[in-house]
Amino acid sequence: MANIQTNETEKLWLGPHTFHIPPELFQLNRKRLVEELRKVCGNSVVLLQGGSELPIYDTDINYIFRQESYFNWSFGVTESDAYGLIDTTTGESYLFFPRLPSEYAVWMGPLKLLDDLKKKYQVDHVHFVEELPIVLQKLNREKLLTLKGPNTDSGLIAKEATFDGIDKFNVDNKTLFPIIANLRVFKTDLEIKVMKYVVEVSSAAHRHIMRTAKAGLYEYQCESEFLNYCYKNGGCRHSAYTCICGSGINSAVLHYGHAGCPNDYQIKDGSLCLFDMGGCYFGYSADITVTFPVNGKFTPQQKIIYEAVLKSNLAVFKAGKPGVSWTDMHLLSNRVLLEELKNGGLLQGSVDEMMQEDLAAVFQPHGLGHFLGLDTHDVGGYLDWCPKRSCRPGLKSLRTARTLEKNMILTIEPGCYFIDPLLDQALADPKKSKFLVPSVLNTFRGFGGVRIEDDVLVTENGIVNLTKVPRTVQEIEDWMSGKDDDKKYS
Amino acid sequence: MANIQTNETEKLWLGPHTFHIPPELFQLNRKRLVEELRKVCGNSVVLLQGGSELPIYDTDINYIFRQESYFNWSFGVTESDAYGLIDTTTGESYLFFPRLPSEYAVWMGPLKLLDDLKKKYQVDHVHFVEELPIVLQKLNREKLLTLKGPNTDSGLIAKEATFDGIDKFNVDNKTLFPIIANLRVFKTDLEIKVMKYVVEVSSAAHRHIMRTAKAGLYEYQCESEFLNYCYKNGGCRHSAYTCICGSGINSAVLHYGHAGCPNDYQIKDGSLCLFDMGGCYFGYSADITVTFPVNGKFTPQQKIIYEAVLKSNLAVFKAGKPGVSWTDMHLLSNRVLLEELKNGGLLQGSVDEMMQEDLAAVFQPHGLGHFLGLDTHDVGGYLDWCPKRSCRPGLKSLRTARTLEKNMILTIEPGCYFIDPLLDQALADPKKSKFLVPSVLNTFRGFGGVRIEDDVLVTENGIVNLTKVPRTVQEIEDWMSGKDDDKKYS
Repeated sequence: MANIQTNETEKLWLGPHTFHIPPELFQLNRKRLVEELRKVCGNSVVLLQGGSELPIYDTDINYIFRQESYFNWSFGVTESDAYGLIDTTTGESYLFFPRLPSEYAVWMGPLKLLDDLKKKYQVDHVHFVEELPIVLQKLNREKLLTLKGPNTDSGLIAKEATFDGIDKFNVDNKTLFPIIANLRVFKTDLEIKVMKYVVEVSSAAHRHIMRTAKAGLYEYQCESEFLNYCYKNGGCRHSAYTCICGSGINSAVLHYGHAGCPNDYQIKDGSLCLFDMGGCYFGYSADITVTFPVNGKFTPQQKIIYEAVLKSNLAVFKAGKPGVSWTDMHLLSNRVLLEELKNGGLLQGSVDEMMQEDLAAVFQPHGLGHFLGLDTHDVGGYLDWCPKRSCRPGLKSLRTARTLEKNMILTIEPGCYFIDPLLDQALADPKKSKFLVPSVLNTFRGFGGVRIEDDVLVTENGIVNLTKVPRTVQEIEDWMSGKDDDKKYS
Repeated sequence: MANIQTNETEKLWLGPHTFHIPPELFQLNRKRLVEELRKVCGNSVVLLQGGSELPIYDTDINYIFRQESYFNWSFGVTESDAYGLIDTTTGESYLFFPRLPSEYAVWMGPLKLLDDLKKKYQVDHVHFVEELPIVLQKLNREKLLTLKGPNTDSGLIAKEATFDGIDKFNVDNKTLFPIIANLRVFKTDLEIKVMKYVVEVSSAAHRHIMRTAKAGLYEYQCESEFLNYCYKNGGCRHSAYTCICGSGINSAVLHYGHAGCPNDYQIKDGSLCLFDMGGCYFGYSADITVTFPVNGKFTPQQKIIYEAVLKSNLAVFKAGKPGVSWTDMHLLSNRVLLEELKNGGLLQGSVDEMMQEDLAAVFQPHGLGHFLGLDTHDVGGYLDWCPKRSCRPGLKSLRTARTLEKNMILTIEPGCYFIDPLLDQALADPKKSKFLVPSVLNTFRGFGGVRIEDDVLVTENGIVNLTKVPRTVQEIEDWMSGKDDDKKYS
């Protein structure tokens, strides 16, 4: 029996150079959930169903497993096909794992003991899945709370737990969703530590790419190197979302990088790189965009747009704090951008009037930013009782219109893009064209775009930036020329 | 309108340092399909439906798109949500792409013109998806052939094409499947070139990892570096399957690397690394396993097992050629392994009798190898008219029992693992235990395992190895000590 290695997987980490996620993080989430649920329905039990492996079409190869986020938030379980149960009366929690056949040990690895899983996840009880109905019957609570509700970014519906025989219980699938979604908006101190870690790893990866990117490389080679950096150094097996690595004109394609535009252009000398990428650590996601000239030196034209966006970004940092409406922050960043574009000679006339005409959405069709957490576009943006989504250009793409509160984590990501169809539409619309200076504007056709995206924490006093990348023109040029070292950003 | 970059994506490649897949590859596949179908039903039309984007649970983030393999084989289309149609009467082919809203251009990139797509994919006609029923009506063929049939590795069913109004046509979903699945077994010269490319890229990545792996690293750090090598240098955005990076005892876990065992052990000095990884280039997949001592020097014990497996592997290379049954190759490799384990003092008695008792399956529960192509476990293994799957240990895991023919591409992957539950079972079974030498065998407990997996092409005269990695003990030790250079293997 020699050489049996210690099972290091009993910790939620990927070695001592990575962040150790304590099981208390999920215990605390469950505790918070129980406290909220007791206010509305005392004698109930919450049932959540974890994710399952997903085959690639009809093959026996699976996508690498990702845990469902509500389940992850509540239990932190990394294995597939589990159920979790929280008794609101006692506050006790239960996990149910599939009973695996003995052959599993041959193909997939040693069968994990229930006791080991109980220890790993620090729950009160562990069982096999088949025992779920029996446990529920014994508990005999008034209501079985399951999760059902819309994701307001995708329009899809959260995964509702189910099992054979669930119809024998009094299922309530309305109460749980708004409560748990809202709790996910507010990060605990333990969650904030994990978020800081994944944002730091992703920041370091971006800094690395800024120094290795060069003309002649293909965009996807930077994507590849970024993913490697986050995984190898930070244990991020997944990326938070598909990497957007646009160079030149592609930097104006907001969701570049998908299979139709797979980061497959060669980066040309003199062009801007807009790299929007983030690692994902046990589900917790970073979402950072840097924009920089591939050759390390901004042209005057690039500097105008870059600094306009940076001013817009910094204005939000300055104004943002608890009590401030996110919609107002969006409009503030819009206003600053328009002012700067006017100063740069691209626009003319009254900025107030431009704001009334939603002119900023011509240059920044997307929202200022979004909640960030276990999902890249994190949940809770438009719960029933929250301010509704606007219909106005730009604002309609804002993923929440809520008021800032302490412990929210969001992105601040103003941008400015020169997108031909939007410019053409604006030029053809007298209400908008009067503000445009075509002779100048047309020199920016094909320029691409700039986005500056930070991941930030709302604190009592204001906004703290978790992102650690060079941001001013000077910082970027210094960093890319090798002047500064990592210490400045860590 | 300055700076508009040439759209390099009109080629199926990722730059001149990668392999350019000619559209003729897919034209030829369609031609072969038409020829076969004409033999059984002349006046018909084939309809295949491409894959769709897949969201991660209820979020608006998608898994990176992978094309469905039958559709990929027929059309090579990289975009999602397309349909393809092949008229067996005229041999003409049609592609149907979704009509995207003008807003798509803002978020996802310029709308592709149908004419450009026609040129890119070299089909006779391109339309929007909504025109599919009209085109089908005009063609007015007797039968509409759709794809339905089992994947004999997963038990899942191939994606059958469907659209609103398909019930108005005379659908036949029986004819197409066995014909197209069988065609996929035999690679054309154009496909062989792509397969050679992806196997070469993956081989080079393995060689790179063999030199960078060292004690103290975590297994997943080698996974990360492998993926980066294949993507950055070879344009392989996807891996063919989840990387298996087992070290020490984990090398005996056949499908290690999944979320339950995510390559998360620290590699210990003196341990073996069994790394089973392959790149995927526009769907075409490599599947290579190397086993090597992390410190670059085999122990006598490691050498015994490694050389036993290598002899087993080489015996198949020597005997394999058209006309030979794959089942016989599996049994041959088993026999060689048992002989070598006997020579090594782990077994005793008659090898003939061991074969009768399926003793090899104690040490190698899996099959000798499988078809390889657009799927890692490629299709066509057990079509209705093919030799049936055996019920015997080991053989029952063989993914095909067919006779080798020219232009098949397969893996040859014998292995030898010390898996406690299997050893305990064998020791408790008098029919098997009499062959075992417990005193020696027990010194191998915790040893892990060895697998040597090559990707090979069957030619007229025999088997050609496409894999280019160090294989003998001497070659591995030389490579890892830096003696040889890449030229030896390219």
